[in-house]
Amino acid sequence: MIPAHGYAAQSAESPLSHFAFERRAVGARDVMIDILYCGVCHSDLHTVKSEWAGTVYPCIPGHEIVGRVVQAGGQVTNFREGDLVGVGCMVDSCQHCTPCGEGLEQYCENGFTGTYNGTEKETGRTTYGGYADRIVVAEKFVLRIPDNLDPAAAAPLLCAGITTYSPLRHWKVGKGQKVGIVGLGGLGHMGVKLAHAMGARVVLFTTSPGKEADAKRLGAAEVVLSKDAEAMAKHLGSFHFILDTVAAAHNLDAYLELLRTNGTLTLVGAPATPHPSPTVFNLIMGRRTLAGSLIGGIAETQEMLDFCGEHGITSEVELIPIQQINEAYTRMLKSDVKYRFVIDMASLKQELAA
Amino acid sequence: MIPAHGYAAQSAESPLSHFAFERRAVGARDVMIDILYCGVCHSDLHTVKSEWAGTVYPCIPGHEIVGRVVQAGGQVTNFREGDLVGVGCMVDSCQHCTPCGEGLEQYCENGFTGTYNGTEKETGRTTYGGYADRIVVAEKFVLRIPDNLDPAAAAPLLCAGITTYSPLRHWKVGKGQKVGIVGLGGLGHMGVKLAHAMGARVVLFTTSPGKEADAKRLGAAEVVLSKDAEAMAKHLGSFHFILDTVAAAHNLDAYLELLRTNGTLTLVGAPATPHPSPTVFNLIMGRRTLAGSLIGGIAETQEMLDFCGEHGITSEVELIPIQQINEAYTRMLKSDVKYRFVIDMASLKQELAA
Repeated sequence: MIPAHGYAAQSAESPLSHFAFERRAVGARDVMIDILYCGVCHSDLHTVKSEWAGTVYPCIPGHEIVGRVVQAGGQVTNFREGDLVGVGCMVDSCQHCTPCGEGLEQYCENGFTGTYNGTEKETGRTTYGGYADRIVVAEKFVLRIPDNLDPAAAAPLLCAGITTYSPLRHWKVGKGQKVGIVGLGGLGHMGVKLAHAMGARVVLFTTSPGKEADAKRLGAAEVVLSKDAEAMAKHLGSFHFILDTVAAAHNLDAYLELLRTNGTLTLVGAPATPHPSPTVFNLIMGRRTLAGSLIGGIAETQEMLDFCGEHGITSEVELIPIQQINEAYTRMLKSDVKYRFVIDMASLKQELAA
Repeated sequence: MIPAHGYAAQSAESPLSHFAFERRAVGARDVMIDILYCGVCHSDLHTVKSEWAGTVYPCIPGHEIVGRVVQAGGQVTNFREGDLVGVGCMVDSCQHCTPCGEGLEQYCENGFTGTYNGTEKETGRTTYGGYADRIVVAEKFVLRIPDNLDPAAAAPLLCAGITTYSPLRHWKVGKGQKVGIVGLGGLGHMGVKLAHAMGARVVLFTTSPGKEADAKRLGAAEVVLSKDAEAMAKHLGSFHFILDTVAAAHNLDAYLELLRTNGTLTLVGAPATPHPSPTVFNLIMGRRTLAGSLIGGIAETQEMLDFCGEHGITSEVELIPIQQINEAYTRMLKSDVKYRFVIDMASLKQELAA
């Protein structure tokens, strides 16, 4: 076992604080990663507060991990010491079901192993995430980070990036298409950048009048205030694809009716209370579809990182020391972040050295 | 103008009864059809009872029409006197929007012209449907009925047939697939026959224990009582595609969770009250989609008829004289029909001759 340090919640009510623990020993197919940066995702907050069922404490969240390989097992072929690598939401899956065979580990029929709050097959213990100094991960679930990207700003690509990239690719977004992104947060701002880089004309839907300039800077051709019925009506039946990143319950019909024939509205956020039931009429007229999408497979995550390398795309981030994680959560709840907090793990190492 | 006779409702409360009216003169691109049979669709009932907005009275319903060409305009190229032909739900569309250009006249951006209760472009009058002795239709919206099919039993193919065929084809149902059909009524029984003929393993979902033998005779490999939670649970995550033909509000999650990764649940019935809101989790996990579909385009309707000709597929029908249409509506409301009423138009001609 390898001694490690991180920031953990000891209960749903307690703040995150320093926690000493152990990583599993580096197996033949594992790499050990010295964590440099870890993005802060809403899922981290939901899990540490036990807002979703089944949080095991202590809980170390974090699944937008960027770091350097410091040790590689004897059978590791793709990575070596010094490589800049990433780890996203998954660290394992069954590897033998149909989705795993198709590179869709996120839909593993036997359940993928989450980077945190999962169950590590090698040890039977709960997995601890990236708010830590190091992590041991099977090579198969480790990604290569393109050299030209800022490693801190690349961290959110591992969750926010792939969560938006995968549906944009699956529904074949590209040139000549009009694509909507609903919400300009951690996910939405990546959706705008990626859909724009794929060649689509991007329209950002937001409830916040203040976001127009930012959205346009990130790649939106147009910004529509979703509460402005007249502005919305101008876009009826015109979108090939709309990616809805908003996790709060809202009226889906407002977006379904903006789709063209054969258009798709894809949800990547799951609200705590259900959306109002969408009108069947809006689906039947125009053969529209309402879909969901969950992160992306490992091969597609590498494809996304390479695409971001080619296009120089990273997340807009605010770097914080790990000692400010509890304040960052408070600010995140107020949407007071543009657009993703990333923990600079040097701050943890300084704390340990002190 | 051409004198014609049909059965019309004079108001939402009145029964259907004899009504003399006029068809437009046969234009250069029109054919006049001597109607032999007309299927009885639930839409007919909704429209004559004004359960959907906008019924114009008098109203002659009927959009599952089979008959023989008795006159063809000078520029008609595909049909001649004596041809056995059909007319479905549409008699016109704008012909210049993108969906029309793609053969998806049912999604015409300017609105297709319904076979009844539409507005005839040539005259500005309300269209009258197939519960009548004759009809004049532009050749482009006339279909050829394969010679080997029983003309009476082929009539429901024009609506019930294409409404189920189109989504089965669009979502690429075929060999090696497990396909669910929800409901064994006018639409559902066609869905079972067509999906089976396409090579899929068909599972019929019903709330009626009495329908098992019939469903299997029509092509279902298995019948599941949808109220039996244990029986439903055996099929979790196993369907490539489910076609839901039930127009009453019901729980969609029960079917969404039966879909495999990338599976689709397509609705062809629109309930008067909304379905309970489907759980976003069921869409996100497995990248499932919830879709709608409306009848089919003209080229696809011909393709469906040809497919039915090749496979010897028609509807299961109960032939009635037009004088029994009001009783038939009462029975249809009680689902007391296996599985489609078809009006034998000889009964109208006998009434007129008497």
